Amino acid sequence: MSEGAATSYPLSARNRVKRRHDRGFYDQATVHAVLDASMLCHVAYVVDGQPYCTPTFFWREGTTLYWHGSSASRMLESQAAGLKVCLTVAHLDSLVLARCGFNHSADYRAVMAFGTARLVTDGQQKERALVAMVDRFFPDRTAGLRASTAQEIKATSVIAMEIEQASAKIRAKGVADDEEDYELPIYAERIPVRTVLGAPEACPRLRNGVARPASLQGYSEGRLLEDALTGAQRHYSRQE
Amino acid sequence: MSEGAATSYPLSARNRVKRRHDRGFYDQATVHAVLDASMLCHVAYVVDGQPYCTPTFFWREGTTLYWHGSSASRMLESQAAGLKVCLTVAHLDSLVLARCGFNHSADYRAVMAFGTARLVTDGQQKERALVAMVDRFFPDRTAGLRASTAQEIKATSVIAMEIEQASAKIRAKGVADDEEDYELPIYAERIPVRTVLGAPEACPRLRNGVARPASLQGYSEGRLLEDALTGAQRHYSRQE
Repeated sequence: MSEGAATSYPLSARNRVKRRHDRGFYDQATVHAVLDASMLCHVAYVVDGQPYCTPTFFWREGTTLYWHGSSASRMLESQAAGLKVCLTVAHLDSLVLARCGFNHSADYRAVMAFGTARLVTDGQQKERALVAMVDRFFPDRTAGLRASTAQEIKATSVIAMEIEQASAKIRAKGVADDEEDYELPIYAERIPVRTVLGAPEACPRLRNGVARPASLQGYSEGRLLEDALTGAQRHYSRQE
Repeated sequence: MSEGAATSYPLSARNRVKRRHDRGFYDQATVHAVLDASMLCHVAYVVDGQPYCTPTFFWREGTTLYWHGSSASRMLESQAAGLKVCLTVAHLDSLVLARCGFNHSADYRAVMAFGTARLVTDGQQKERALVAMVDRFFPDRTAGLRASTAQEIKATSVIAMEIEQASAKIRAKGVADDEEDYELPIYAERIPVRTVLGAPEACPRLRNGVARPASLQGYSEGRLLEDALTGAQRHYSRQE
């Protein structure tokens, strides 16, 4: 797939990286890689001048982001025109301890995506989205589940947002001190930070003879969560 | 310290947990514990009707939150009255795979804190905050660093926000299926997710004979980041 390899999101004051602009990226490949490595995002929206920042699960299909369960969905019911949103994903990669306070920092990858959120109300689109909500993370899982009831489908809000603009901000250089400070007898280091999967804990009420399906092999003990998610996204994109 | 043990943040429509209100908590002890276990937060604010969601480091002193480096700081320079903010912290604790799509979920701990952000401009307060910005995370570290220059202090923006209202939302129960679904021959599990520290990597340009200080022993390989942060916060609070 050549998706986004050379395409960039349009740039304006809204998404231009302001502080440390040397860390800014706008190409779809970089932006999507940061997004696809996460399931957790933070969605900012405004109601009556008050900002809200809601953590929720999300997923990507092309240049559209989807999420659900946000309290923004109640607002959206009365706003057919949609709601301005900034959806942000951040990965903390390391803590950076430098030789002065000012150069203490972190390695990280973050994306801010801007657009207008709308409720997915079309029945067929919503049904497809509810499958994607599970299968994007856990390959082919929906096929083996108890089917959703009409009540469950009704009780789930799905929100969609076309990415109008986005920026990625990435730092990946560990300790970076002022040149003259390297001579000082001060300890400096980088501490890697990793988000990993623990050993899966089967439900204690599992029926006899029910085994873990092979489709979950990407979620194995000790694996990086982001590797499992990126792998699952590749699998899901191939099937679309 | 009895801080916050029985005190709650005031409740209104702004911070009341709307979906799954059984997961909502408003007491300071619960809210602060979720905050203190993180260094990364997401700050939502509004400029000209456009919401922004910025990831940044933050720390807590009593019921005041501090952060720096946010692009909100530029906005704040022209807004002496302050800027409405929602500061959110989220910990992902496990992925929950249930027997139907609807019950797929996650265990998590999240806090949304509401208030009005202001720039810290008073020289003495700012100097103290710049020390806290390092020492809250890395006990007593500032004392051993090259001192900050006037230019560095000037180049750093510190933002403070008294928590006016807050809510914590916590799920910690693993698989929770509809009672009749437990009879189905479908695999279900909980996958723990943990954010851990890797082996510290000393700066390659360290002067000979400079050893890792004992004060960093809380940041050891394999430890949970949140345990290191909670421990450091306790140390810092005792010294205040």
